[in-house]
Amino acid sequence: MKAILERRSIRKYQDKKIPDKELKKLLQAAMAAPSAGNQQPWEFIVLRDKGNLENIIKFHPRATMLKTADAAIVVCGNEQKETHKGFWVQDCSAATENILIAAQESGIGAVWLGIYPREERVKGLQELLNLPEYVYPLCVISLGYPAEEKEPSNRYDETRIHDEKW
Amino acid sequence: MKAILERRSIRKYQDKKIPDKELKKLLQAAMAAPSAGNQQPWEFIVLRDKGNLENIIKFHPRATMLKTADAAIVVCGNEQKETHKGFWVQDCSAATENILIAAQESGIGAVWLGIYPREERVKGLQELLNLPEYVYPLCVISLGYPAEEKEPSNRYDETRIHDEKW
Repeated sequence: MKAILERRSIRKYQDKKIPDKELKKLLQAAMAAPSAGNQQPWEFIVLRDKGNLENIIKFHPRATMLKTADAAIVVCGNEQKETHKGFWVQDCSAATENILIAAQESGIGAVWLGIYPREERVKGLQELLNLPEYVYPLCVISLGYPAEEKEPSNRYDETRIHDEKW
Repeated sequence: MKAILERRSIRKYQDKKIPDKELKKLLQAAMAAPSAGNQQPWEFIVLRDKGNLENIIKFHPRATMLKTADAAIVVCGNEQKETHKGFWVQDCSAATENILIAAQESGIGAVWLGIYPREERVKGLQELLNLPEYVYPLCVISLGYPAEEKEPSNRYDETRIHDEKW
């Protein structure tokens, strides 16, 4: 609960490498997510190359924090693994949220950068990462040890809760 | 990490009430999720009425565990609150995953029942819960204290991880 409630989007990073074994933990968390009929339609591209990270900014103007990120994980949906059509976005979003919570628990700062369904961003990443046409990038998760501190944000809003019906 | 890695879909429940304060914790976790531009496009319908729960089975044949569930949370996207068009499914999926992890931590069993984009299920819930046409049910989370135990499932698959490109 603590990690869920205290997690914030972190966009400023220290110049410090995330060990491979920490990145592996994030990917383990990702693949522990539920999916429709347990179809597990996900693929993960791990980026550490500075050039690769900076190239994303060309088609995603809000991704400038990638200049100082140590790594990124691109979460993708593989249409060929989608046995329950129409659910890959939900499955891959659950995997993404698991990565964010696991990062918070590991002291790693992260921010979810939306890609799908923005066409220019999807196409940009498919070309940059040589993705087959049946693999859709859902988002880029920018990662690095935090160089900023943020208080937990209380978004709890009782007006969004409805008893039994609208 | 423990809750993320050990979480399983729980479909058999004890005849035991979930206290309101425990349900509130799940909703707090849900609303702590990230969303596109922090738009928070979610709404939550909390179901405890047996008739309401059982009515869902009529249009969702795989939802029979709702007969013995103590409660359910219907996670919905409110199109009128979606300032970043095309992202409500991702935002509400992150909120759903937070509920599942918080439930696991609280010893509550849960299973994510897909609704959107299956038209007959969306329509069925909109009618049952009196949802406005701009509110889309994403999923139903069935909840109850577990009457079954499941070992953690190791879904980690290295073939899904790609370095720098496909």
